Amino acid sequence: MGKQRVLTGITTTGTPHLGNYVGAIQPAIAESQRGEYDAFFFLADYHALIKSHEPAVVHQSSREIAATWLALGLDTDATTFYRQSDVPEITELSWILTCVCAKGLMNRSHAYKAAVQDNEQKGDDPDFGVTMGLFSYPILMAADILTFNASKVPVGRDQIQHLEMARDIAQRFNHLYGDTFVLPEAVVGDDAAVLSGLDGRKMSKSYGNTIPLFLPEKKLQKHINKIKTNLLEPGEPKDPDTSTVFEIWQAFASPEQTAEMRKKFAEGIAWGQAKKELFELINAHIAPARERYDELLLDGVLLEAELLKGAAKARAHAAPMLAKARKAVGLAAFS
Amino acid sequence: MGKQRVLTGITTTGTPHLGNYVGAIQPAIAESQRGEYDAFFFLADYHALIKSHEPAVVHQSSREIAATWLALGLDTDATTFYRQSDVPEITELSWILTCVCAKGLMNRSHAYKAAVQDNEQKGDDPDFGVTMGLFSYPILMAADILTFNASKVPVGRDQIQHLEMARDIAQRFNHLYGDTFVLPEAVVGDDAAVLSGLDGRKMSKSYGNTIPLFLPEKKLQKHINKIKTNLLEPGEPKDPDTSTVFEIWQAFASPEQTAEMRKKFAEGIAWGQAKKELFELINAHIAPARERYDELLLDGVLLEAELLKGAAKARAHAAPMLAKARKAVGLAAFS
Repeated sequence: MGKQRVLTGITTTGTPHLGNYVGAIQPAIAESQRGEYDAFFFLADYHALIKSHEPAVVHQSSREIAATWLALGLDTDATTFYRQSDVPEITELSWILTCVCAKGLMNRSHAYKAAVQDNEQKGDDPDFGVTMGLFSYPILMAADILTFNASKVPVGRDQIQHLEMARDIAQRFNHLYGDTFVLPEAVVGDDAAVLSGLDGRKMSKSYGNTIPLFLPEKKLQKHINKIKTNLLEPGEPKDPDTSTVFEIWQAFASPEQTAEMRKKFAEGIAWGQAKKELFELINAHIAPARERYDELLLDGVLLEAELLKGAAKARAHAAPMLAKARKAVGLAAFS
Repeated sequence: MGKQRVLTGITTTGTPHLGNYVGAIQPAIAESQRGEYDAFFFLADYHALIKSHEPAVVHQSSREIAATWLALGLDTDATTFYRQSDVPEITELSWILTCVCAKGLMNRSHAYKAAVQDNEQKGDDPDFGVTMGLFSYPILMAADILTFNASKVPVGRDQIQHLEMARDIAQRFNHLYGDTFVLPEAVVGDDAAVLSGLDGRKMSKSYGNTIPLFLPEKKLQKHINKIKTNLLEPGEPKDPDTSTVFEIWQAFASPEQTAEMRKKFAEGIAWGQAKKELFELINAHIAPARERYDELLLDGVLLEAELLKGAAKARAHAAPMLAKARKAVGLAAFS
């Protein structure tokens, strides 16, 4: 028995921010360094095309995400790190799965139903603005997973349903054509790892409230200064547990540092001072990686080489898997 | 200006029959021999997966169709003859097009609407038994065409709408990402070329009324004997224009032979005799090709080599086209 294969995709439509780092990137890299799993990480750029019709955004985001993971120390020899669009086996398998997937299954997708509900509330046609990409997205996600027979897929709560759909599709295929795919299991992430953004809501590109991870020092400071606080004056005790400043502090600090800051809040630290200390903490934490990131971002040749190395490793798994699926459905050579 | 590119797909879910031969295969090969167009013919085996979940059927049909076209003299040097599933660029482009295709467009597909109507009449869920393959089929068809920038696509009347959808999808892509695809035009086939089957309805696999093209002699004779006729006795004059026997005769005979048979009908030829003469006419017509067909069907190595030659030619067009589309949407290398 080999190690369990764990697969994680990162949609390439934005710039990595502190929330991504704390909630996803840092834990994923740390886990991959423990070497317990056979880890696959990919830039989900075929998925990005659903969300963005801006080529420059998709391209720049891919570049930034690749540079980020490498700068943070992802070991591309111990893991498989690739760009989805470098593995054409995925879209081919996606079509094969499309032919066994019931339309009724896609009708039930939360993401699609939310778009329909939104349209209906506005009095629009239910499918207004809905692309087939949004509608068929769970099939591509199934192909992402089944191409590699990944057994574990870390997902947020909003993705559990899509993972179940991947299982359904795999089961349907196995039923029709014989045992071909491993049924993947969702590993539901710890929601506690979600970080708040500048306005106190969950840090998310769609809210426009993020602090990009590798901002230059001055910009990082400016962003941190913009974190929403209440109107309590210096000297007035402050509640750490409702403070975004404290929440972000906690995500980067040691337990000792956190205890110390909690004490300072009780003693009425000024918001300006707390933000200054938060900036210093984060900056010290990420400065070495930021230097590597800035270099990598400019080094397209190195980034490309790393991703093509990953694609070659990925395709070494994808090609025999696709061949198996093709044979099962009747797409075999004549000799 | 090069020649116009004409593209024709043959879904690999059945055995070629006389109706296919008269209505599609023979005219297509004849036209390709005139060399007026840059002709692309492909075995649409990715499409076959929508209609058939029987691997043996898909595989055997691909083999029979390939052997049929080659036996009938298709020049694979002058044309591009390939298996759709040997060109992975098609499914990759299909995903890219999926991301620009409105779901509303697919909702309006006749084929999908017919399935829904059928379900509703039976009191079933509207999407009962509808796969995503059936629903998304026009997108794959668009990819078939746009991958090769085909300008002319011969279609039956039932396919005109799908061709218009391919145009819509191409237009939408060009609008979003800049001029990339040629807008294909439908060339609507001559409905007069449709042949009737054993029971007098249109000869079609779905009616189970076909006469396979390359049946062994005795079986061909038996099938022809089963063509439905009326109860008129020998000596009684018969109406050629309502007779399937006469219709098929006409499709294979010279104008002189047709005039002669028309006279025999007026003179009251016995049905048995008319069928005997029809068998002899067809058999003489196809016997040489049948011999080649029987050999080819057993020669998997040759069939495979022919199709791989075609796939290489097809991919030489598909790869740069896909590269252009990928670049347009932002899937470009970093260096």
